[in-house]
Amino acid sequence: MRSVDEHRAAVAALVPRQRVVDLPPEGAVGLTLARDVVAPLSLPPFTNSAMDGYAVHAADAAAGAVLPVAFDVPAGRTDVPPLPPGSACRIMTGAPVPDGADAVVPVERTDAGIDRVRIDEAPEPGRFFRAAGSDIETGEVALRGGETVGPAVVGLAAALGLTAVPVFAPPHVAVLSTGSELVEPGTPLRPGQIYESNAPMLASAIREAGATAEVLRFVADHPDALLGRLAERVAAGGVDLVVTSGGVSAGAYEVVKEALASRGVDFVKVAMQPGMPQGCGTVGFDDGARVPFVTFPGNPVSALVSFEVFLRPALRAAMGLPDRPRRTARLAEPVASIPGKRQYLRGLVAEKDDGTDSVSVLGGPGSHYLRWLSQANCLLDVPAEVEHLAAGAPVDLIVLDGTH
Amino acid sequence: MRSVDEHRAAVAALVPRQRVVDLPPEGAVGLTLARDVVAPLSLPPFTNSAMDGYAVHAADAAAGAVLPVAFDVPAGRTDVPPLPPGSACRIMTGAPVPDGADAVVPVERTDAGIDRVRIDEAPEPGRFFRAAGSDIETGEVALRGGETVGPAVVGLAAALGLTAVPVFAPPHVAVLSTGSELVEPGTPLRPGQIYESNAPMLASAIREAGATAEVLRFVADHPDALLGRLAERVAAGGVDLVVTSGGVSAGAYEVVKEALASRGVDFVKVAMQPGMPQGCGTVGFDDGARVPFVTFPGNPVSALVSFEVFLRPALRAAMGLPDRPRRTARLAEPVASIPGKRQYLRGLVAEKDDGTDSVSVLGGPGSHYLRWLSQANCLLDVPAEVEHLAAGAPVDLIVLDGTH
Repeated sequence: MRSVDEHRAAVAALVPRQRVVDLPPEGAVGLTLARDVVAPLSLPPFTNSAMDGYAVHAADAAAGAVLPVAFDVPAGRTDVPPLPPGSACRIMTGAPVPDGADAVVPVERTDAGIDRVRIDEAPEPGRFFRAAGSDIETGEVALRGGETVGPAVVGLAAALGLTAVPVFAPPHVAVLSTGSELVEPGTPLRPGQIYESNAPMLASAIREAGATAEVLRFVADHPDALLGRLAERVAAGGVDLVVTSGGVSAGAYEVVKEALASRGVDFVKVAMQPGMPQGCGTVGFDDGARVPFVTFPGNPVSALVSFEVFLRPALRAAMGLPDRPRRTARLAEPVASIPGKRQYLRGLVAEKDDGTDSVSVLGGPGSHYLRWLSQANCLLDVPAEVEHLAAGAPVDLIVLDGTH
Repeated sequence: MRSVDEHRAAVAALVPRQRVVDLPPEGAVGLTLARDVVAPLSLPPFTNSAMDGYAVHAADAAAGAVLPVAFDVPAGRTDVPPLPPGSACRIMTGAPVPDGADAVVPVERTDAGIDRVRIDEAPEPGRFFRAAGSDIETGEVALRGGETVGPAVVGLAAALGLTAVPVFAPPHVAVLSTGSELVEPGTPLRPGQIYESNAPMLASAIREAGATAEVLRFVADHPDALLGRLAERVAAGGVDLVVTSGGVSAGAYEVVKEALASRGVDFVKVAMQPGMPQGCGTVGFDDGARVPFVTFPGNPVSALVSFEVFLRPALRAAMGLPDRPRRTARLAEPVASIPGKRQYLRGLVAEKDDGTDSVSVLGGPGSHYLRWLSQANCLLDVPAEVEHLAAGAPVDLIVLDGTH
């Protein structure tokens, strides 16, 4: 049997670092800058006032001085003349300081005059100036490769006049469930049928990881129907990866295995629980197209755990984004584990009154308990060789987000 | 001057708990379930096999027994007959167990026969059954009010056949920047002009908080133009809140203040740095429409800090979502703070080798340093009465996300 780490490496090799695309800053939120971006202009672009008040020559503006107001400078004025000696100009926050002025007196330190102004407190030269380039100088690195684009990066990019930033493109993943027992929600169930849940669940998980996803409507359990559906979608373009669930175990009707085993997908057993039957590889289609595939088991819990363990790290690395945080917590109760299999148990981790973290297992090892998975905020990662962990023993966790 | 907590409460009062909407599970990711949802069917809906193998009467299936294979049960078969005494049926993972069968023998414990099968190991009754209702019984609470919808909740909802789930609707926020100095990125700057960055930055921050946002193109510094633009958009419907930036300080050209002070917005000074000039209230329009407004200062750093301190907590609470985590870290260097003002400094918090968290201040208190804000991963929250904090002193942090 393949180890978890071996299969994780095989999946990662199928999802290379993504190509670089230029996106508008607002459309790049959550993505990673692919390279440094140099400032095309200085910020502020011109020296401006940090206060509403009066720009003056400091030498003219002793306490008690009364100066004529030569002109007004509202923010946005583009034709500001130099400040004549012996005069002041009314200036608003953010407005350009006129040539010649070397100080700003806040309005609160004056009589707020319109035609002439009395200075109540002498200014310090340079005070309340926002100097051109004091935030960033033209040519300096403004956005750093490897940073994730968030609101402040959007603001900085816009302030620099950038209409696009270079980021790693999110991979686009097509998700397909197989199984003749599957029925779309909204239609009645007949005995023996179940509602299809894997494709919308996996698509949501892929999007939550920052990639994009589409659901291919599931097809009947027939290899030719499956291959035909996939070839059609792949030929239409834009698919970086296909993820399937179901049709991969040891039974007689394993459509994914039948369709893809001869086309480049390795079907393997991974020493883990849940999620033993896995597959991955690059599929060649008759028209020459080649697309990476990752195949998950059909059980919903196995499918989502497989995503967390194998595919999410690969997708995040391809986008230059960090994977889930991991940490350690102490077990609230003893746990038995299957020897020889690395076990991923659904858990609820919480801080105790003494400040330490305690983790409880939800719902036992059964792999079909969607209810417990939906309530978990972590996965316990129990090594293959462990058979028993006592209450209080430390255990490694994969911390799931608030939206788990 | 108003305290930060007082103004936060005033803003929160403007953004009430959101209405409940029914959304498709995939469209509800990141939102909060507004009430419990009861399972309309059991999961699994029918008892099915956990393995590929043979369903048998355990009494017939001693080790070495050879049984005729009466029929096959692939997953999805909807017309499974009862299992005749003295016989077996081939059954696939997930397929319904026929009436009469009380055990499943995995294929690995047989000779894998097609017409007849030799049992190599006697089964335990009930083993490898996934009993109907073992995950959830019809009528049990399946989705819990207050939970955030994530991929596993999407999977569970779909498995239950639900095409919609009740969640708190995300508020829709219209964002408007004002300032005659503002120019849209992509056009050349004249002296005295700057690129508009607040609206895309705030819209990104609002979306990152889980709400929806649209940017209203900024208008010239004229109260009538501003009111006209706002009235037009509000009349078109769908706006839960308007956020403005700029036009609120003490100067002569404060368009937001001029337009809105007589229409229900309180303009106040808040004892904080950055972000002193704030405003909020419900604006009445001439057609009778009433919409809550929150007004931020025009400086980009002040605007985003104001969002984090006042509006983000209100938006998150309105959606039933938790706000940013807060924690404490020790200062890497001494910090001076303005007495009488609660100061929010941009910081970088990192774990040191000894496992403790250390926080450095980025770029000093100047409120116009977008560069430092774009690199910060936390805001230091320094109380109003503090003037000096020594290196090593503990300080409260608002932890910004990976996407800051």
